[in-house]
Amino acid sequence: MAAPSTGLTVAQVLERSPAGDWRPLDPQNTLLMDLGSDGSRQVIIELAPRFAPRHVANIRTLAHEGYWDGLAIMRVQDNYVTQWGDPNTEVPEKAKPLGKASPKLPAEFSVPLKGLPLVRLPDADGWAPITGFVDGMPVAADPKTGQAWLAHCYGIVGAGRDMAKDSSNGTELYAVIGQSPRGLDLNITVVGRVLQGMQHLAALPRGGADMGFYGPSEPRTPIQRVRLLADVPETERPALEVLRTDSTTWPALLQARRVRKEEWFLHSPQHINLCNATVPTRPRMK
Amino acid sequence: MAAPSTGLTVAQVLERSPAGDWRPLDPQNTLLMDLGSDGSRQVIIELAPRFAPRHVANIRTLAHEGYWDGLAIMRVQDNYVTQWGDPNTEVPEKAKPLGKASPKLPAEFSVPLKGLPLVRLPDADGWAPITGFVDGMPVAADPKTGQAWLAHCYGIVGAGRDMAKDSSNGTELYAVIGQSPRGLDLNITVVGRVLQGMQHLAALPRGGADMGFYGPSEPRTPIQRVRLLADVPETERPALEVLRTDSTTWPALLQARRVRKEEWFLHSPQHINLCNATVPTRPRMK
Repeated sequence: MAAPSTGLTVAQVLERSPAGDWRPLDPQNTLLMDLGSDGSRQVIIELAPRFAPRHVANIRTLAHEGYWDGLAIMRVQDNYVTQWGDPNTEVPEKAKPLGKASPKLPAEFSVPLKGLPLVRLPDADGWAPITGFVDGMPVAADPKTGQAWLAHCYGIVGAGRDMAKDSSNGTELYAVIGQSPRGLDLNITVVGRVLQGMQHLAALPRGGADMGFYGPSEPRTPIQRVRLLADVPETERPALEVLRTDSTTWPALLQARRVRKEEWFLHSPQHINLCNATVPTRPRMK
Repeated sequence: MAAPSTGLTVAQVLERSPAGDWRPLDPQNTLLMDLGSDGSRQVIIELAPRFAPRHVANIRTLAHEGYWDGLAIMRVQDNYVTQWGDPNTEVPEKAKPLGKASPKLPAEFSVPLKGLPLVRLPDADGWAPITGFVDGMPVAADPKTGQAWLAHCYGIVGAGRDMAKDSSNGTELYAVIGQSPRGLDLNITVVGRVLQGMQHLAALPRGGADMGFYGPSEPRTPIQRVRLLADVPETERPALEVLRTDSTTWPALLQARRVRKEEWFLHSPQHINLCNATVPTRPRMK
């Protein structure tokens, strides 16, 4: 890392950030998933229409229709994923209807690198020649293929699929709850990431059946409802803002994590990894 | 990765492994931590005496004396660590006595690289110039400093410390439950790793106070007991064996994860990261 130390701790970098370096939640690209019946245990998910436009459009429709309301978390595999959807997908007469949503979509594993507003990380990664951030999302890319894709970091949300490449439609989603399983990259459509509330997905009991699915005797975690933020009354919307990854605060924050100024640290890694560089949120300033 | 594909899936590599590529648990270097009163929710921890001999010796003494029996998990911070020990450490008159264990130890952050039986990974890492495995443990090293250290991967167990470098004594331990926080490497003494039962530490409710500590109104998870395997009757010992990382099966397994032969995978990463290369266990063969 050639960049100089900021001389600041992570907390100091955040304290000094200008208001314009933060952005509000986008009502069209934010999901609120409530696991508690009283609005508690809320998971906030940001969607990535730039990377998976067809899946994101379908997910908006599904949320608008209340598709996930009353469905369930069906799989929690330790150090891997928490997955939710319709437990009756395989039983057509019991499966929840998709309404206006599409039952079938093309795979959206990657997008052209060219023209992407990628804020690059200078740090080597190992999994991909290029890494960085777009719209707050962790991105990997390969100039040889000219493709870029969302990287499977902690909290990333993807669309489960069967054997066929185009067998996902956004009804069944998963979030990464362990060490980044980057071997999934370019194998599946990623649709966004959890912005807040990961603990409500990551602390669930692990499933005892194959691949962490819950067995017949294990209670699934019900989903109370999933709403698109645009469908939520203004007064109920989370008062949250997100650090812009195209701001000057963002590279300063990364540098404060490469060269640690907190008293506790005796050694600085001089490095940051794509999946350790979590984008901060904070309560919205008045 | 220049190495050729094995042409086998991960499962096939394991099925074909010779019996001698597996090793039993070492009674002197294995801890059994029971979170359930009926022997359920058991966490099996392998100690790393080669990397932290003084801490491991102290931990053996503490376990032999039943130090942790009735103590508690005090901290669960999402995507970071679960930490346990004596909630009354700061209140000397209430703190559990250490018996024959040392209250103070030197820091054991790294060991000489020279002479270490390191099975190197050829894959680039970013955090350290060299990575690999010793005794089943993930290791990073730097030829410039001549030092090697245990890397903070998912499931690694370390000894909590305060500001002073030498303020850990092995009484307060933590396990990594999220994306590998490799920025901790070389800052703290790592004492081993969880071999089995990570889900019992990773699925616990997150603490609501600063840094994921449980607040006054949040119930801690009690620890029923922690025993050194050598102190456990033979009939109660887990019938488990561990793949040797100095075997021929181990590099074949890693290669099967770089070049995926399972039908589901459409793309192979051609790469593996130190912290994604989890060492398998299996029920002991007769």
